[in-house]
Amino acid sequence: MSAIDLNSDLGEGYGAWAMGDDAAMLSIVSSANIACGFHAGDPAGLLRSLREAAARGVSVGAHVSYPDRVGFGRRDMDVAHDELVADVVYQIGALQGLARAAGTSVTYVKPHGALYNRIAGDARQGRAVIEGIQLADPSLVLMGLAGAPILAQAEAAGLATVAEAFADRAYTPEGTLVSRRETGAVIHDPALVASRMVQLARDGTLTAIDGSTIRLEARSICVHGDSPGAVAIARAVREAFEREGITIKSFTDHAA
Amino acid sequence: MSAIDLNSDLGEGYGAWAMGDDAAMLSIVSSANIACGFHAGDPAGLLRSLREAAARGVSVGAHVSYPDRVGFGRRDMDVAHDELVADVVYQIGALQGLARAAGTSVTYVKPHGALYNRIAGDARQGRAVIEGIQLADPSLVLMGLAGAPILAQAEAAGLATVAEAFADRAYTPEGTLVSRRETGAVIHDPALVASRMVQLARDGTLTAIDGSTIRLEARSICVHGDSPGAVAIARAVREAFEREGITIKSFTDHAA
Amino acid sequence: MSAIDLNSDLGEGYGAWAMGDDAAMLSIVSSANIACGFHAGDPAGLLRSLREAAARGVSVGAHVSYPDRVGFGRRDMDVAHDELVADVVYQIGALQGLARAAGTSVTYVKPHGALYNRIAGDARQGRAVIEGIQLADPSLVLMGLAGAPILAQAEAAGLATVAEAFADRAYTPEGTLVSRRETGAVIHDPALVASRMVQLARDGTLTAIDGSTIRLEARSICVHGDSPGAVAIARAVREAFEREGITIKSFTDHAA
Amino acid sequence: MSAIDLNSDLGEGYGAWAMGDDAAMLSIVSSANIACGFHAGDPAGLLRSLREAAARGVSVGAHVSYPDRVGFGRRDMDVAHDELVADVVYQIGALQGLARAAGTSVTYVKPHGALYNRIAGDARQGRAVIEGIQLADPSLVLMGLAGAPILAQAEAAGLATVAEAFADRAYTPEGTLVSRRETGAVIHDPALVASRMVQLARDGTLTAIDGSTIRLEARSICVHGDSPGAVAIARAVREAFEREGITIKSFTDHAA
Repeated sequence: MSAIDLNSDLGEGYGAWAMGDDAAMLSIVSSANIACGFHAGDPAGLLRSLREAAARGVSVGAHVSYPDRVGFGRRDMDVAHDELVADVVYQIGALQGLARAAGTSVTYVKPHGALYNRIAGDARQGRAVIEGIQLADPSLVLMGLAGAPILAQAEAAGLATVAEAFADRAYTPEGTLVSRRETGAVIHDPALVASRMVQLARDGTLTAIDGSTIRLEARSICVHGDSPGAVAIARAVREAFEREGITIKSFTDHAA
Repeated sequence: MSAIDLNSDLGEGYGAWAMGDDAAMLSIVSSANIACGFHAGDPAGLLRSLREAAARGVSVGAHVSYPDRVGFGRRDMDVAHDELVADVVYQIGALQGLARAAGTSVTYVKPHGALYNRIAGDARQGRAVIEGIQLADPSLVLMGLAGAPILAQAEAAGLATVAEAFADRAYTPEGTLVSRRETGAVIHDPALVASRMVQLARDGTLTAIDGSTIRLEARSICVHGDSPGAVAIARAVREAFEREGITIKSFTDHAA
Repeated sequence: MSAIDLNSDLGEGYGAWAMGDDAAMLSIVSSANIACGFHAGDPAGLLRSLREAAARGVSVGAHVSYPDRVGFGRRDMDVAHDELVADVVYQIGALQGLARAAGTSVTYVKPHGALYNRIAGDARQGRAVIEGIQLADPSLVLMGLAGAPILAQAEAAGLATVAEAFADRAYTPEGTLVSRRETGAVIHDPALVASRMVQLARDGTLTAIDGSTIRLEARSICVHGDSPGAVAIARAVREAFEREGITIKSFTDHAA
Repeated sequence: MSAIDLNSDLGEGYGAWAMGDDAAMLSIVSSANIACGFHAGDPAGLLRSLREAAARGVSVGAHVSYPDRVGFGRRDMDVAHDELVADVVYQIGALQGLARAAGTSVTYVKPHGALYNRIAGDARQGRAVIEGIQLADPSLVLMGLAGAPILAQAEAAGLATVAEAFADRAYTPEGTLVSRRETGAVIHDPALVASRMVQLARDGTLTAIDGSTIRLEARSICVHGDSPGAVAIARAVREAFEREGITIKSFTDHAA
């Protein structure tokens, strides 16, 4: 693989509250997962984020969430099928409107936080998210966890998908994320993260937490921007890719 | 005039809370002003309302509001220009997404409640609403109060507009609404309302509160559905139009 | 038993939206579970409900909920311990303030909806609710489902508790509620409900769904007011109690 | 005057979003205006702020606001009398509950943002705030802008009041704040601010923007903590007071 996508969560402020360093991240990533107002993001702030993404040619994804602003979308919720379908449509539509106003467009959907984790393996809520995307715009790509059942479920339903890996997370020999509750789950050394991601981009392999080598199909890599340390890691990954001749570009950008 | 539009506010429930008789009103009106989640309307309920509107061939407008659910969008707010622009875009986009999911589309925008009243004469907030509509979709029509400056302001900016009259409201000799604080401001007799609206649709005139005859250019008439009495008035207007051979159809429906 | 408490959920409107017939229910019940703004209830509406409860001498409980207005507190949420503790304290405090303004006071706490069901058997969230009540005011009584583990858990922690039965629900031979998904879970005949509740109040027994007789310790009976049919059932229960000489009074009213 | 109060706005985070340096400010001020959830502050975060204030012996005031989280309570709203009364009671009650849980208590009320500015001169909304405080707890002190009519209005209604000055703001010869739209409205030099506040605390006078000396009765001085520069100014004021032998203590602390 000579090209890969870097994605990050952006537009996560709310009114007077800021979060993360959007400007820094927009100079690093090729895809921006932009909040839609349910876990974060007010319309005026989202429009500013979208305009910056458009100005830098960064692809835009709808970062849809449970309706839980005070919990930042991180709390699991038993949302009924019809509610979740409509919540997904509403959020995509709102972001599409703002993206159009900013001179860009939404090309993919990445569920956020607890919803992301839930649908990785919960086929019922997964089906609601898939149905919501298809009702909103069936040409949208679903971004999900590499190796998770949701990807096959979405493809079977007719959606295009993109699998992503997490740059700073350790993986089990089975190719799943090591739980954050375990030691070594998060990798803090920028150089180590960068070299792992170069290997992933070039060979499609990663060293698992037990030292074994695993295959991981991932067309996008998720990096964070919510702290100076996180930005440093993201920048290290980008610089390593540039050094190694790996092109960073959105998976929706078909030109080489 | 042998044809006129009837519009009403719909989709104004919220979660477990209902409001108005949407099913009854959808059998009466040709245009539905559908809430967008800021003063009323949760995504699942809005999707149901949009599907019913689509099934009955009723045109859909985005009923955009200040962000004030507990106040039902009825409280004047000093929203900054950029905030109001983005709030309008967000709401239109969200409703467009849901409308697409329901097999229909948004064809016009009607500001709601305090925002409607404010922009009737406040050119600054009016400009923000116009800019929001143009950023979201410049083909959308702005519905506003017949005779109010906002209509000329929007047309000068390049938006198509539709002027509306209020079926159950008394008018001053100057063609403005009699304030609700004054006696006689609201007309409760269905037969009287119906005959006044027939005259308006046919001749473009109304009897003002002082007995004088005024001209009023209105291509749409607003009727309410929030109480059994209101539905009865709306039905009386529709039946009078049918009796008099006046076609009820959306102003966006160009076929005769 | 010659006296029993009747309780009902009240104050469940929100802004422009009404729910239930509070005035009717306040003439029937001895205890009002009043919303605290998280699943329903805006401050002005809550203050009106509290003033009516005070005027009729109806006891007031804080009907605390997950923060989920659009879902009416009916959706299970994985709220962290510290969040749930503070959410309970905040809601109790807010209702205490409004109750004081209305000339009454909060005497008990009844968790609402999904939180009620969750803590019936989830000791972790149960502990958070208990801790919240104790931090807010350790003299408050916790109302819970008759037979559920939460009651013993709360008593062991030092809280007074009141067990409640549901007037219109069928019970299993084990004394638990028959799931709403099963046939016969809800009893719709007012006369049958009334005679069952008379038996419960007098003998502490109920006929289970299989015909067996079970013991159920319940010092309060929950009746609903969210539909005309529900109000009719509540009224039938009250009238049967009056006919049979069973006093309806709050469990916090120690005078006979 | 040998003692004065320093107050600052605290508890203004929301869920995952932080704002200001509460820990730094709690080592500087004697009174903390703590958000109540309407413009900022979730229950768990507020409880943490209150526990820190309690640990440091800082007095607690309820920083009540319009219900406008996305606008941070900075947008003027036409709230009806009954709504505003109940909103004030609800917020005070909620904070009293959390304060009790934190081992402290609410001793005063300071309206926030647009509500603060509005009631300075709008006697109608001012009356609603006063009524809300009296219904919640008539022993609470109202903090307001030195020289503003609201203070006399509140005292005439029977409330105790405290007038405050703004440390970093310029004043007109009439003793009102220079509008932020004018040059020189905000003073950025910590040393200058500190020396002005020493003069105010000692002599009850300030140099107005035209060079004249004005009298200003203020028992509290408001300092900000929302940026490193603001914290530096607040610290300079505190250090100047300590150097000059001016005691910093809450106006509710009657012991010397």
